[in-house]
Amino acid sequence: MEKITLGPMPYMSVMPTLLVGANVNGKANYMTAAWATVACMAPPMVCVALNKTRYTVKGIEENRTFSLNVAATGQVIETDYCGIASGASADKSKMFTSFYGLLKTAPMAEECPVNIECRLFRSVDCGSHLLYIGEVAEIHADKNCVTDGKPDVGKIHPIVYAQATYYAVGTVTGKAFSDGKKYEKQ
Amino acid sequence: MEKITLGPMPYMSVMPTLLVGANVNGKANYMTAAWATVACMAPPMVCVALNKTRYTVKGIEENRTFSLNVAATGQVIETDYCGIASGASADKSKMFTSFYGLLKTAPMAEECPVNIECRLFRSVDCGSHLLYIGEVAEIHADKNCVTDGKPDVGKIHPIVYAQATYYAVGTVTGKAFSDGKKYEKQ
Repeated sequence: MEKITLGPMPYMSVMPTLLVGANVNGKANYMTAAWATVACMAPPMVCVALNKTRYTVKGIEENRTFSLNVAATGQVIETDYCGIASGASADKSKMFTSFYGLLKTAPMAEECPVNIECRLFRSVDCGSHLLYIGEVAEIHADKNCVTDGKPDVGKIHPIVYAQATYYAVGTVTGKAFSDGKKYEKQ
Repeated sequence: MEKITLGPMPYMSVMPTLLVGANVNGKANYMTAAWATVACMAPPMVCVALNKTRYTVKGIEENRTFSLNVAATGQVIETDYCGIASGASADKSKMFTSFYGLLKTAPMAEECPVNIECRLFRSVDCGSHLLYIGEVAEIHADKNCVTDGKPDVGKIHPIVYAQATYYAVGTVTGKAFSDGKKYEKQ
């Protein structure tokens, strides 16, 4: 296969589509983010990269808490709006029914099937973006999106993000920690 | 919608499926990872979380370089094997055709459609895991997986990871920075 070089760019194959919830000046705000993943197993942590100019940054710095709310395929329009409109000029506090958990200051959107409530562990200054690493204080989920005590991707219908496009999760192509055993037998 | 709490856990809705390439003791090694995302736009950075006990950690610490190789749906068996078998006991150096780029010490798998070549920017000790943040030195891609100078998800067929299951990318459900405009008009 012929390889070509494309130059350095902030590339990732597929990403989650989330709403970052933060209280800014005492009011709930939600912004769309896809640059996020799990950062640690024990203690459980997640991370999300935010441009330093984002309104949400003010809220995370102020409260040292935030939430990651999993958007579902049926919420594409609201979700995308939260990435277009800044909380600096648009009041997004009424777009969702906000609720608060253990940390008191991390607003979560009731309409999203899963809500990851986080306390700030560390922020890493990477340049244009701050990488916020948060310890997971609690996972909140719609009761009907849970199977065996865990959020169930088949019930949540999360949005996959790639190349400025929102996708549904597709067909199953394999099982982890299982299919690889076939390779050993080759 | 009735919400329930599931306790703190390292949850993310969907993740990429990657092979982390590193030279360990002078030999190419590849391990499966899904806890990865973009960390910064300028300079371009990505991050990946690895358990401290991983064999790959030795190579990243030694060379301060690594690669993230995007696995395609046709590579599920090899990919999953790299998550089951540790380089400490299995020689994975011949599983893929390794090539090296600008950084000389970050092995990349030619068989993977996209290869992200990274120099270590910072490692963050989160507990059980180290979050490695790498500056993207170069993006290498199969020529036939590129459209308008960028890797094309429709040609790559990347694997989405969720709940120990590998999925294909599904149908398009929306366009980012576009569909949200409909909300403004409501």
